[in-house]
Amino acid sequence: MKQTDSLESEVRSYCRAYPVMFSKAKDSHLIDKDGKSYLDFLCGAGSLNYGHNNPVLKNKIIDYLNQDGIIHSLDLATESKEEFLNSFSKNILSPRNMDYKVQFTGPTGTNAVEAALKIARKVTGRTKIISFTNGFHGVTLGAVAATGNQHHRGGAGIPLNDVIFMPFDGYMGKKVNTIDYMRRLLEDNSSGVDLPAAVVLETVQGEGGINVASSQWLQSLQELCKEFGILIIIDDIQVGCGRTGTFFSFEGMGIQPDLVTLSKSLSGFGLPFSLLLLKPELDVWKPGEHNGTFRGNNMAFVTATAAIEEYWVPDELENQIILNSKIMKARLDEIASEFPTSDIQVRGKGMIYGIDCILEDLASEIKQKCFENGLILETCGSDDQVVKLLPALNISEDDLRKGLDILEKSIKQVMDESDYKKILEAEIVQK
Amino acid sequence: MKQTDSLESEVRSYCRAYPVMFSKAKDSHLIDKDGKSYLDFLCGAGSLNYGHNNPVLKNKIIDYLNQDGIIHSLDLATESKEEFLNSFSKNILSPRNMDYKVQFTGPTGTNAVEAALKIARKVTGRTKIISFTNGFHGVTLGAVAATGNQHHRGGAGIPLNDVIFMPFDGYMGKKVNTIDYMRRLLEDNSSGVDLPAAVVLETVQGEGGINVASSQWLQSLQELCKEFGILIIIDDIQVGCGRTGTFFSFEGMGIQPDLVTLSKSLSGFGLPFSLLLLKPELDVWKPGEHNGTFRGNNMAFVTATAAIEEYWVPDELENQIILNSKIMKARLDEIASEFPTSDIQVRGKGMIYGIDCILEDLASEIKQKCFENGLILETCGSDDQVVKLLPALNISEDDLRKGLDILEKSIKQVMDESDYKKILEAEIVQK
Amino acid sequence: MKQTDSLESEVRSYCRAYPVMFSKAKDSHLIDKDGKSYLDFLCGAGSLNYGHNNPVLKNKIIDYLNQDGIIHSLDLATESKEEFLNSFSKNILSPRNMDYKVQFTGPTGTNAVEAALKIARKVTGRTKIISFTNGFHGVTLGAVAATGNQHHRGGAGIPLNDVIFMPFDGYMGKKVNTIDYMRRLLEDNSSGVDLPAAVVLETVQGEGGINVASSQWLQSLQELCKEFGILIIIDDIQVGCGRTGTFFSFEGMGIQPDLVTLSKSLSGFGLPFSLLLLKPELDVWKPGEHNGTFRGNNMAFVTATAAIEEYWVPDELENQIILNSKIMKARLDEIASEFPTSDIQVRGKGMIYGIDCILEDLASEIKQKCFENGLILETCGSDDQVVKLLPALNISEDDLRKGLDILEKSIKQVMDESDYKKILEAEIVQK
Amino acid sequence: MKQTDSLESEVRSYCRAYPVMFSKAKDSHLIDKDGKSYLDFLCGAGSLNYGHNNPVLKNKIIDYLNQDGIIHSLDLATESKEEFLNSFSKNILSPRNMDYKVQFTGPTGTNAVEAALKIARKVTGRTKIISFTNGFHGVTLGAVAATGNQHHRGGAGIPLNDVIFMPFDGYMGKKVNTIDYMRRLLEDNSSGVDLPAAVVLETVQGEGGINVASSQWLQSLQELCKEFGILIIIDDIQVGCGRTGTFFSFEGMGIQPDLVTLSKSLSGFGLPFSLLLLKPELDVWKPGEHNGTFRGNNMAFVTATAAIEEYWVPDELENQIILNSKIMKARLDEIASEFPTSDIQVRGKGMIYGIDCILEDLASEIKQKCFENGLILETCGSDDQVVKLLPALNISEDDLRKGLDILEKSIKQVMDESDYKKILEAEIVQK
Repeated sequence: MKQTDSLESEVRSYCRAYPVMFSKAKDSHLIDKDGKSYLDFLCGAGSLNYGHNNPVLKNKIIDYLNQDGIIHSLDLATESKEEFLNSFSKNILSPRNMDYKVQFTGPTGTNAVEAALKIARKVTGRTKIISFTNGFHGVTLGAVAATGNQHHRGGAGIPLNDVIFMPFDGYMGKKVNTIDYMRRLLEDNSSGVDLPAAVVLETVQGEGGINVASSQWLQSLQELCKEFGILIIIDDIQVGCGRTGTFFSFEGMGIQPDLVTLSKSLSGFGLPFSLLLLKPELDVWKPGEHNGTFRGNNMAFVTATAAIEEYWVPDELENQIILNSKIMKARLDEIASEFPTSDIQVRGKGMIYGIDCILEDLASEIKQKCFENGLILETCGSDDQVVKLLPALNISEDDLRKGLDILEKSIKQVMDESDYKKILEAEIVQK
Repeated sequence: MKQTDSLESEVRSYCRAYPVMFSKAKDSHLIDKDGKSYLDFLCGAGSLNYGHNNPVLKNKIIDYLNQDGIIHSLDLATESKEEFLNSFSKNILSPRNMDYKVQFTGPTGTNAVEAALKIARKVTGRTKIISFTNGFHGVTLGAVAATGNQHHRGGAGIPLNDVIFMPFDGYMGKKVNTIDYMRRLLEDNSSGVDLPAAVVLETVQGEGGINVASSQWLQSLQELCKEFGILIIIDDIQVGCGRTGTFFSFEGMGIQPDLVTLSKSLSGFGLPFSLLLLKPELDVWKPGEHNGTFRGNNMAFVTATAAIEEYWVPDELENQIILNSKIMKARLDEIASEFPTSDIQVRGKGMIYGIDCILEDLASEIKQKCFENGLILETCGSDDQVVKLLPALNISEDDLRKGLDILEKSIKQVMDESDYKKILEAEIVQK
Repeated sequence: MKQTDSLESEVRSYCRAYPVMFSKAKDSHLIDKDGKSYLDFLCGAGSLNYGHNNPVLKNKIIDYLNQDGIIHSLDLATESKEEFLNSFSKNILSPRNMDYKVQFTGPTGTNAVEAALKIARKVTGRTKIISFTNGFHGVTLGAVAATGNQHHRGGAGIPLNDVIFMPFDGYMGKKVNTIDYMRRLLEDNSSGVDLPAAVVLETVQGEGGINVASSQWLQSLQELCKEFGILIIIDDIQVGCGRTGTFFSFEGMGIQPDLVTLSKSLSGFGLPFSLLLLKPELDVWKPGEHNGTFRGNNMAFVTATAAIEEYWVPDELENQIILNSKIMKARLDEIASEFPTSDIQVRGKGMIYGIDCILEDLASEIKQKCFENGLILETCGSDDQVVKLLPALNISEDDLRKGLDILEKSIKQVMDESDYKKILEAEIVQK
Repeated sequence: MKQTDSLESEVRSYCRAYPVMFSKAKDSHLIDKDGKSYLDFLCGAGSLNYGHNNPVLKNKIIDYLNQDGIIHSLDLATESKEEFLNSFSKNILSPRNMDYKVQFTGPTGTNAVEAALKIARKVTGRTKIISFTNGFHGVTLGAVAATGNQHHRGGAGIPLNDVIFMPFDGYMGKKVNTIDYMRRLLEDNSSGVDLPAAVVLETVQGEGGINVASSQWLQSLQELCKEFGILIIIDDIQVGCGRTGTFFSFEGMGIQPDLVTLSKSLSGFGLPFSLLLLKPELDVWKPGEHNGTFRGNNMAFVTATAAIEEYWVPDELENQIILNSKIMKARLDEIASEFPTSDIQVRGKGMIYGIDCILEDLASEIKQKCFENGLILETCGSDDQVVKLLPALNISEDDLRKGLDILEKSIKQVMDESDYKKILEAEIVQK
């Protein structure tokens, strides 16, 4: 226990799983105070898609600081903002035929979600939001009401309302189309489900256990929403910025969301930064109606612009993700097949993958063993039963394979040293 | 109109009052693209108490970047966090005999407020919060419910609840002690005012119009709260970090809040950073119950530590604030006395001051004229009728006097070029 | 249009379908001002299970009035209350081995529901209630939040919250067990469905379209509720007091609700009267915590006692319901078979039946034609597409058959005079 | 303890103060099972303004029953309703130049209040309601949110919201005009007080402790409401129907409410019956939007019509109230003057009066002693510290004086047998 443990609130969490003090980081490596290096498959929960201290971005910041560039400016116009907007418009939105306005919200994901929910309610004049089982959208009061996790909901101290939860794709088993159920509820005047302002969802649920929505399901959802005038908010905070293989996670899936939230890897350098994309006709905000001190994080503008130009103008990164994705998928399937039950699922796409270990303790011990072996990764899912892999998108093939090796080795060690084999076999028999 | 105006949401606000593009900043000066320099009495709405690009802090960041220090780490333990916690504990809390635990919330003020409201509700098992007329605490759903301003409240799109507003110090005129009224309501079993979890307040209401609570009022409030087991949350986001003359705005006022929120100037460099101080017995959070991606902003740890050591270990800054405060007060009183009515009030303390111009348009035109004359400041108050001065605490005497000169000159110009003299005189007659 | 139409609020509804003025009533007959007699299959929406002006009950009231019995007494102890409690306990509860305490709520069904929801929340310390699609529980704020119908929900003028709607038995088609879905949501820590205080439901949904819950479904629900400590509230306001063939609608279905609401036919004479049954351990009310001026409706005590002794001590009525039910079922199936589509469903049990006509206008025209032919009945269902039959339980066989004759004749007339045949056939083709 | 005590819920309250069983009642007398007679100054909490078993009304009911008049008819048109509407219009509304539509709500006061709040929110599109300290409006969820009493609020089990409490007339002492404070809050864009749909208030707060609003205060309130488009709901459930000397409590006070609730003594016979008066332009209900089974209580129509014709067409009753009021006021002032402190207040008007005994236990013991001496009355106020007198309006002078004699004697006995003299004297010294 460090001296500062008694100073910092009990709310701290990640540091409990990896009880060392980190002092430096580079690319896919975290180095602790004693010089020990760890491969990082956590990546700031998806905030470091281009690795730690990416040199291109770092140099841009240092230059900017040396020139006494504007650091803090509320929402004043600055050159760095101008450059970001122009680059984002030219290199991200335009090539994808996406016509959106950009709102810089407070520099946290939850703040972007709050802004999205507010404007959806304001525009439609409706109060309810539909969120989905296992969705995670943040922990401020508006966002946590749309977050499924009881651990986070319980922190609010008041009843959470004005959000209705619907079953996500696949939630009711393969045979039930959950959009049909939603349609039934919305068409039925006596279902008790009030017509909502918007649906809010992740296309791949990150915290919720790496649940991947299919294109077909998303398209059915969009059709239903159009029919009832319901706005679609895609929360791309965790799986946007390339995580699934494309800049936006919903590219190529046949949907056009009305609102999109981005954060985490948006700055490219791990800096607090968020934005909300709105279809122009939804931008009915009055000046300052949603405000905040740190909306314009100029250093983040600088690195975000650099990240776009470095990684999203050429197509190398996209190709690398395809390659890495294949490596991950193949290896994880192999690892999964070694479990004594076929119930162990590998889920994911692009470079976000999870192994559903069914048992919370098993996932936790694998995480722990990986850490001992020099690999940092986290667990997710409603019972934290899923081992989650979020390597940097531009990780070297060598590091990627090393990490997967450690994972495989760690799982073997856990299985060898424990009774999980028997427990898993018993689970199968029970079914 | 810039090219990017059509890209950015209509929600942008400050940039409308100062329609130029800024490119550099140093100390108390903002420099636009064309090289024109402006004195900055806005200071990021109180986020730049030590001026722009403070060289001491800037050098620390550059060093940190050059060493590949950790930039993003969720809530992992890092050396920069360790150093901040130790310095904050040793140099800020200990000398003031303040025993608190530190929670790093999402790096926005509103996120710290949300965390405070949540833990207050959780600890007490009560749902209601008492906020005060003209209070401002942020715009996410939990915080905006405690914010008085209809402009911000209206953005929520749903009824705001679980907060009861009480009259701030002086709200009902000099003769009515508003704490007596609160006491009456709390003692009366049929008042309809449910026993709240907490009160949340600023000791000097910034956005609300520079309304200064007296020590006596704060002490009465504390006495009342103790009697009823109500927690006190001091929102020191805008007026903490030295703005009123001491690190915490409530120092020397005879109160010991249960929870304190800090943000804005906490990093010292304008970086997104927030924290919540909790009395140790209130720290009943479960790990991760209130979380967020950017809780540990390591660059902000670095600059915040440097700011503490540079400005709060020696006592020069505190002495400078006293001096500056006197200059401001004297000059503003003089300026106010030149208005054709004694209703024009100068309010404030330390280095936060406002001139209540009674008329919204008058305040707005003064702001506009100041800008033309090279001084940036904002307006505040329920009708934006107050001209607000927030110079950097370490501003040079020369710059401070220059800014006040511009203000005086601008007011004279506005009065000369308009009918406000007559309007103000008529207002007096009317009364 | 009557003279008083301009005096009475537009909220009046039933009177629009039957635009005559009624002056007398006897058994199953309503007589209008001009002496025209109508068979009554509406029966005060289930409030007149023993017919109009039942002579046994009427004589009891007249005697009571002549003796200057207590008419209004708040919740004071009175002989008439004492007699009711004793009779209800001895003749209703005891023979069914039901151990409940009796709470006299305000004399409306919605008031009993409000009391049930309040005590369930108070006892469990949880705020959410689970209600079911197509459920109807009243229109005061607490009850209407648990009512599915948008027509009624929309009247509230504020968002309705703290109630979660689940699919009723059969709502997702025959293949999906809706309790399995509920279980999934409750077992999943991230489903977004907060653990509720209680479920509230009708065993046969009256206003919702005569949807009959199966014993098996109710038992599964009970099992699930027990597992999670969720209370079961059976709202027996419309289908209790014998409507389904037994005094309580859930008798013989293998469940023991924690709370039961009764009203409508409870007085037996159409007088305002309601009560809530609570398992003794749930009776944690403080004196007067839920109160109301008309809780003790003494005339209703008198008639309710008489009704119990007349109809629920001997078993003649129960036998008569069985007989009548068979007559109704057989005849309605016959009627349904004459429609040009097998989609026309007959649903119900005991003496509550509905013909689901699929088309709202068709049901409405049948109701209208029946009225012209001297039979009063109403429509129900989410689109008012169900023709609903609620004859008095003690109706003579002659009157029952006459009413069914009128219904059949009216349907034939409507079908002959309209295009519904074609429309219904087209509907089938479309499918 | 009676045998049925174990059957009835602990929520029962009045019966605890008067632990006998009542069997008959006539005029101002309640007679218990053993033949003991009690003078009734409780009168069903104001529901028996014309006494128990008023013979005129009783005969009308018996006739109606003998003719097989309609007893229950939902909201169908009936002759008895027609007659009531015509009489109410001709004899009550027209002579007072009151243009309102009549809505028959569920037959409880709280149901009429719920309807009023709903239509006010619906018409204005606003969600908040302003209620007043010490106001009581019922215990269903919508009404209890507008009720000040914590005892009742606590029963809801969920946070009560969408109602803002303002200080009633005199609540902040004689020197503060509470309407000025309300105005300040409504005019201030940052007060946190959202513009409400309506204010709801009693002109004399019954349960709240017999607090009488002045004409001037009501007029100021009306002026303020007009200015801001806020509707005024007068809850005349307890103090309407003649209790304050006129049919409506607000007659002659210079205000015209937008909505008025009536119940309690409306039937004149103690029968469940309620209505809502709406200004015609507010009657935007859709048919059946606010409904309920017992809206049309036909027996209540019969007695209410008879009561109007017997008591509100001739002016005898109004004259009698004036006389009785004088007797009560004079005698109560005399009684109050005998207390050892001038803090004992007599408050009221017409025939509703209270003696504020300051001490809850003292009021309770007086109530108890009165009961022993054959007088039934209740206590009210936020601490139940007020002895409340609600004799029948048509009580004989003899009975009225007898009741006051018993009260005086009982107070003397309590004071003689206890230490209250000393306690009250000590209270004064303390001040």
